[in-house]
Amino acid sequence: LKQQRDRLQNDHDLNIRLIGLTNSRQRLIQPEGIPLENWEEVLETQGSEADLADFLEQMKALHLPDSVLVDNTASSLVPTFYEGVFEAGISIVTCNKIANSGPYAQYESLKNTARKKGVSFFYETNVGAGLPIVRVLKDLVRTGDRVLKLEAILSGTISYIFNGYQGERTFHDVVQEAQSLGYTEPDPRDDLNGNDFVRKMLILAREVGYSIEAKDVQIDSILPQPCLEAPTIEAFYQELTRAEPHFERLKNEAAAGGKVLRYIGTLEDGQVKISLEAVGSDHPFFPLSGSDNIIAFTTERYRDQSLVVRGPGAGAAVTAAGVFADLLQVCTH
Amino acid sequence: LKQQRDRLQNDHDLNIRLIGLTNSRQRLIQPEGIPLENWEEVLETQGSEADLADFLEQMKALHLPDSVLVDNTASSLVPTFYEGVFEAGISIVTCNKIANSGPYAQYESLKNTARKKGVSFFYETNVGAGLPIVRVLKDLVRTGDRVLKLEAILSGTISYIFNGYQGERTFHDVVQEAQSLGYTEPDPRDDLNGNDFVRKMLILAREVGYSIEAKDVQIDSILPQPCLEAPTIEAFYQELTRAEPHFERLKNEAAAGGKVLRYIGTLEDGQVKISLEAVGSDHPFFPLSGSDNIIAFTTERYRDQSLVVRGPGAGAAVTAAGVFADLLQVCTH
Repeated sequence: LKQQRDRLQNDHDLNIRLIGLTNSRQRLIQPEGIPLENWEEVLETQGSEADLADFLEQMKALHLPDSVLVDNTASSLVPTFYEGVFEAGISIVTCNKIANSGPYAQYESLKNTARKKGVSFFYETNVGAGLPIVRVLKDLVRTGDRVLKLEAILSGTISYIFNGYQGERTFHDVVQEAQSLGYTEPDPRDDLNGNDFVRKMLILAREVGYSIEAKDVQIDSILPQPCLEAPTIEAFYQELTRAEPHFERLKNEAAAGGKVLRYIGTLEDGQVKISLEAVGSDHPFFPLSGSDNIIAFTTERYRDQSLVVRGPGAGAAVTAAGVFADLLQVCTH
Repeated sequence: LKQQRDRLQNDHDLNIRLIGLTNSRQRLIQPEGIPLENWEEVLETQGSEADLADFLEQMKALHLPDSVLVDNTASSLVPTFYEGVFEAGISIVTCNKIANSGPYAQYESLKNTARKKGVSFFYETNVGAGLPIVRVLKDLVRTGDRVLKLEAILSGTISYIFNGYQGERTFHDVVQEAQSLGYTEPDPRDDLNGNDFVRKMLILAREVGYSIEAKDVQIDSILPQPCLEAPTIEAFYQELTRAEPHFERLKNEAAAGGKVLRYIGTLEDGQVKISLEAVGSDHPFFPLSGSDNIIAFTTERYRDQSLVVRGPGAGAAVTAAGVFADLLQVCTH
């Protein structure tokens, strides 16, 4: 905001004022605007003890026109307030996936309330961080295209692991490397279980128009049962070593056909499944590298050749950029 | 519009009225709305002789709020009226590249007038038809990212030709096939000369912030001089056969290094060049197929791994979809 202030003012006649700030420790509301130059210091010295409910009530009580709440948390508490925020005529921009990937009824209710109150609800960064995915899908749907199939790799961590599982390296070593680079949760199984991937596929399926729940997603585990059941992380890694012949067999079978392993989420005929697939060089997911995300939209209009978006789908800078782009979108509404 | 009417009304509270229509033969303005069911018939039977200047004057005189002019032509006449349309407080959505790829001063003036009058000017389909390219670039720039490099293949025809120039087939035969499939202009040199590609690169470079003119673009011709100079299409094809050793040498040199030929537009350090390159399997443009377009955005935030968009970048259905998406964007502004 600080860096782009002049440009937004000059090029887009946009003047975005930062009125309130809260983290888990402190909160501050200054209707005249919190200085962008030293907001951290101001929050520290002039803020009072954090209290989310009270913070949001104060925000609503200001009755400022064109207000936007930006939820940059992954907290499950914040989304419980969304409905009330919309009711107060305030838009929401968020990278938080919780609201959109919870029960369908809640998702639907939020959408309806936002529409009823004429406010915006933008969450491009729920899927693939700053990559243009949710908006592309929205545009396809609202211009009347029919989605035939979505195929996606939406876990940077799992992507990194399968892109790196080549040559002489064991699956164990690739997972361990990903962990040492900080790409995984403390327990790598929290990534490898695919739960986050399920949330993202759910959000996309709902955007297409399916009233689908997490339990409807058919997910094939990457990990054999003993790896999942290992009581400690250390034990998990031991089981992973034991499971190497399993992974090696999958890899070699794929390689024999000139293919590579990819953990792919698919939406087709209203069904979402996530499974390990061997794909050949004619498949758009074949040349993936690093921790890239990728998605292929196959629709009535993009039938013979899909629309494909690819790139880093996680990280602070690209997520912040995506949230910022959403915010600018709301501001020009 | 007809097909999506109910959905737009119900889901987005949008009611888009078609007030005026003109093609090169007839024109019609009906402030109460032209029926979407049989507009062709209504234009035919109730329209008067086409007169663009008068049509636009009538449109302005209506002083309707939230008006949008949609220019679906490739005409160089229509853009000469854009400035006046903006002055009248009317937004423009267009797939027409002429205005944005003409003299920079004209481009800048249009942008300034639209901004001054608070109206929208959307032209996503200027580059890659319905693919999300212009908007992605806009979002990167206005959220403060720094574009380090753009690499793109933005000619479906040339893409098709080089993707098909493999194995035993001659360059001549691939070009002839592309022509017989209707992928090229009547004189295939109108595609192969890259002029359309230049226009698209120009638009992207200007979106990044460079005041660049067509003459600043460094373009390497695909075709040897005799092919360019051949007086007839027939003579051109004869020269193309004579030039086969030239193309074959390029192809074989590339193949010897495991590479393929791609005609790539690059923007770097404010310089645009378009040239034939041999790219290896590690390059994102290696696996391109059919008449796909592709673009890779390398920026400060997408530095190690680019943001890549790929898919069909021409055709009536996807272009119409892109224009429609732009129109909806204006309507929610």
